Amino acid sequence: MAQRTTFPIETRGRGTYDITARVASALDGAPATDGLAHVFCHHTSASLILCENADPSVRRDLDAYFARLVPDGDPTFEHDAEGDDDMPAHIRTVLTQSSLLIPVAAGRLDLGTWQGVYLWEHRTAPHRRRVTVTFIL
Amino acid sequence: MAQRTTFPIETRGRGTYDITARVASALDGAPATDGLAHVFCHHTSASLILCENADPSVRRDLDAYFARLVPDGDPTFEHDAEGDDDMPAHIRTVLTQSSLLIPVAAGRLDLGTWQGVYLWEHRTAPHRRRVTVTFIL
Amino acid sequence: MAQRTTFPIETRGRGTYDITARVASALDGAPATDGLAHVFCHHTSASLILCENADPSVRRDLDAYFARLVPDGDPTFEHDAEGDDDMPAHIRTVLTQSSLLIPVAAGRLDLGTWQGVYLWEHRTAPHRRRVTVTFIL
Repeated sequence: MAQRTTFPIETRGRGTYDITARVASALDGAPATDGLAHVFCHHTSASLILCENADPSVRRDLDAYFARLVPDGDPTFEHDAEGDDDMPAHIRTVLTQSSLLIPVAAGRLDLGTWQGVYLWEHRTAPHRRRVTVTFIL
Repeated sequence: MAQRTTFPIETRGRGTYDITARVASALDGAPATDGLAHVFCHHTSASLILCENADPSVRRDLDAYFARLVPDGDPTFEHDAEGDDDMPAHIRTVLTQSSLLIPVAAGRLDLGTWQGVYLWEHRTAPHRRRVTVTFIL
Repeated sequence: MAQRTTFPIETRGRGTYDITARVASALDGAPATDGLAHVFCHHTSASLILCENADPSVRRDLDAYFARLVPDGDPTFEHDAEGDDDMPAHIRTVLTQSSLLIPVAAGRLDLGTWQGVYLWEHRTAPHRRRVTVTFIL
């Protein structure tokens, strides 16, 4: 049985957004059984990660690392119709995840203590992103 | 209930191959229910990505970027039994995905407007690749 | 129906650990049906990969490549509370997988001939890692 919820995330531009509580609440009302929760981002310039949730410097370092790994405005990129951050956003998405699959134990997300669910906006401008959570039990 | 289909993909060597329609057709005849479609590549030198499906320059830039990120013929690689592209193919696979999991709504793939499913052949020579689609409802 | 098993993996520090047999044995006693096996690592400084299982030089090259891609002790990292390998471990986890989803055919893992399941410890010190296998049929 699949229980499905879709919701928008309004981003303020490039950066990581903690959606753990929003994902967890998609399980509200579900039976207290074991299963899997699937989180999906319907875009190719924003992605999902499981990341350390205690120290914000982890996500600052992650942002800085990816800014070096996939630099905006790389002159070798042919695809720049939407700006310097266009092609880097697609590459960052390919290097991370468009979906996460998380164990559910007795109806609740079974994440590790330090694991949070983040939507990573890769475009510099704000965007509305669509996320779907499917609970399979 | 799991409905399973396996099919081969004949590649012409390194590059991305749009398999979205092939994956969608694996759902033909399935009940019009919600669920998840799993796409799996049974290899360690070819992988799967969700990528922008409108402008082919995105995939050209992606190919060029990965050619720089994981250069063929890197003299530090010990594993080169099958050639200069052998170890880079394994690393590219690890940096991308061996499987994708996509929401299914009313029996149809619920991809974003710009998301396509691509098999990425990382070896320079043509290969026959095996892909399995499993529909969980 | 979801059948769930959790077990610890004791690592001896940074490196890849073959857990294919341990994952396969989580399916023991399951019905001989088709489905999917989900492997999840409940940590943000260790991850999972599907990797070539025949030649150990592949995993040595992979270790060496990632040591260059995400160098320990990078002076630009702000987050180093637990040492030089702290932030690199988080980045390596984000660049690889926290979970794998593998087809199951007639109750058995349907991996490709050369695909093995590895836990990748990214911290230099030994750790106890928790892994959960969920079989969905």
